[in-house]
Amino acid sequence: MIIDCHGHYTTTPPGVGAWRDAQVAALTGGPAAADGPFPVTDDEIRASIEGGQLRVQRERGIDVTLFSPRASWMGHHVGDATTSRDWTIRQNDLVKRVCDLYPANFVPVAQLPQSPGTSIDASVRELRRTVEELGFVAVNINPDPTGGYWTGPDLGDRYWWPLWEAMQELDVPGMLHVSQAENPFFQTTGSYYLSADTTFFVQALSTGFMKEQEDLRLVIPHGGGAIPFHWGRFQGMSVREGWDFEGATERIFFDTCVYHQPGIDLLLEVVPTERVLFGSEMLGAVRGDNPGTGSGWDDTGKYLEAADIPADARSRIYEANARAVYPRLASYLA
Amino acid sequence: MIIDCHGHYTTTPPGVGAWRDAQVAALTGGPAAADGPFPVTDDEIRASIEGGQLRVQRERGIDVTLFSPRASWMGHHVGDATTSRDWTIRQNDLVKRVCDLYPANFVPVAQLPQSPGTSIDASVRELRRTVEELGFVAVNINPDPTGGYWTGPDLGDRYWWPLWEAMQELDVPGMLHVSQAENPFFQTTGSYYLSADTTFFVQALSTGFMKEQEDLRLVIPHGGGAIPFHWGRFQGMSVREGWDFEGATERIFFDTCVYHQPGIDLLLEVVPTERVLFGSEMLGAVRGDNPGTGSGWDDTGKYLEAADIPADARSRIYEANARAVYPRLASYLA
Repeated sequence: MIIDCHGHYTTTPPGVGAWRDAQVAALTGGPAAADGPFPVTDDEIRASIEGGQLRVQRERGIDVTLFSPRASWMGHHVGDATTSRDWTIRQNDLVKRVCDLYPANFVPVAQLPQSPGTSIDASVRELRRTVEELGFVAVNINPDPTGGYWTGPDLGDRYWWPLWEAMQELDVPGMLHVSQAENPFFQTTGSYYLSADTTFFVQALSTGFMKEQEDLRLVIPHGGGAIPFHWGRFQGMSVREGWDFEGATERIFFDTCVYHQPGIDLLLEVVPTERVLFGSEMLGAVRGDNPGTGSGWDDTGKYLEAADIPADARSRIYEANARAVYPRLASYLA
Repeated sequence: MIIDCHGHYTTTPPGVGAWRDAQVAALTGGPAAADGPFPVTDDEIRASIEGGQLRVQRERGIDVTLFSPRASWMGHHVGDATTSRDWTIRQNDLVKRVCDLYPANFVPVAQLPQSPGTSIDASVRELRRTVEELGFVAVNINPDPTGGYWTGPDLGDRYWWPLWEAMQELDVPGMLHVSQAENPFFQTTGSYYLSADTTFFVQALSTGFMKEQEDLRLVIPHGGGAIPFHWGRFQGMSVREGWDFEGATERIFFDTCVYHQPGIDLLLEVVPTERVLFGSEMLGAVRGDNPGTGSGWDDTGKYLEAADIPADARSRIYEANARAVYPRLASYLA
């Protein structure tokens, strides 16, 4: 079985974007966006999925995708806590509809109604609602909801503790994934995503906060940003800085969203097998085919097939690791 | 011949730090720091170098190091333009003294008196002074002088043009190297350095500004941050975003400051040989030996020796590429 741990609903029907546009326009005096769910029909959802993610799943032999709202659209920096709550609830409910329409193919993962400078409690409430009431199996956490100004509490701050505690109680892992860069210094899916991935790993390493959260499991997307490429740098720095490299990061997992063979080979060489999760982020920031190979850039299964690793390691990366990291997946895979 | 393109004076005698402390204290009402150069003797300089960088050079067979002031100490966010000018001139003059004492071993590279929100003209003046009057061969440029708040002009902004033009006129390359993270969200030598390296490459790629600066050559340290690990991601994104991957980045060079064998192997596999420069950043953020190999983490020549590349590629990385990127080196190597 092949489980893709990293997929977003990037192909939403037009009613979703129209609702969001209205919500944003209301922030500067426009009429309020409509009450109730997004004006989107099941047929529109089917059309948006069957020609996109579902088609690619079938082409590539992916059995199931952990499916969350489009990351770059979370936009936690937009508006205030109410803005973020109203948007997030609808986005999560929409993902739930997709997963209910295709229960064998997509398993729901939530975004949170984070808003810079506000309490984490609203996020804990939405986490509980999505997991306990809607059957979500994991959550995306944005550790920089400022959109690239990086001025909130770091991951070692007690600000995050209620969220860590709820995640452990509910037995769900979190993927650390930022959203759109509001700061124009960054390009969202390139420099911002990869800088964020790198930064959050270093925060976990330097603060050691996960040692106090004994069952917390975190996933860093995009192969961990710069981390595996600089594995030796961080091992060496840890000695000098007194960081516990192994202990502080042993429950951090890396997906395989690295879109060329040498990158995947390096990832598999330096990161312990049990901490690698198959992911492709399709349909994501990188679409289309590599003219050098004729395959999709994000067809990460091809790189995994070509990698010089034992078959049982490949199988763990495809399935067993995801089952261990996302225990609530089991009920969907029965 | 082995040329190390990336070395900083990280072992300065105590008089340097004392002067800087006084300068910083003066910003909040302390007495002004002393006029004139740092109170440091030639014997103190010799002691600081002979037990440090010179010893390591000899142990590792490095012939010459491009030597600049300590990067994390540039601190462009501290004080104002006068603060930065007074500190930078002294730091560059000190590096010149080191290189005059050891002309066969160290070649001077400047820092610039950047200060957030001020004109680039002061930096152009210091560039001219160091190159034309003192014989410096290159310059370190900090594209985020805010210290991790990332709120200045990006590299594609015309703000930088007077600097690019002067560099081309003088035929000196620039290393894009940030300084200490003032923003506590970042750890200076880990998440900040690598995020910066990644971000500046993406700025060059997405803006294409180097295509208008036909002789400009830029070096990204620390192996280019996350870039080589995600080479496929950026190739694929370029197609979708309409960026000219080759044309926009063909005069960007990467050093070998990647401190483990798999990282160096990947760097050499994906980046064209003519764009890789030998560097070790000793004595830098990562000191001490890897217990798994018994060698220094930053002994990057060992990785290069073990890499599966032709001898002439290794020779280019050690010497020929540096001669091409830093033409003013020639007079020192005669």
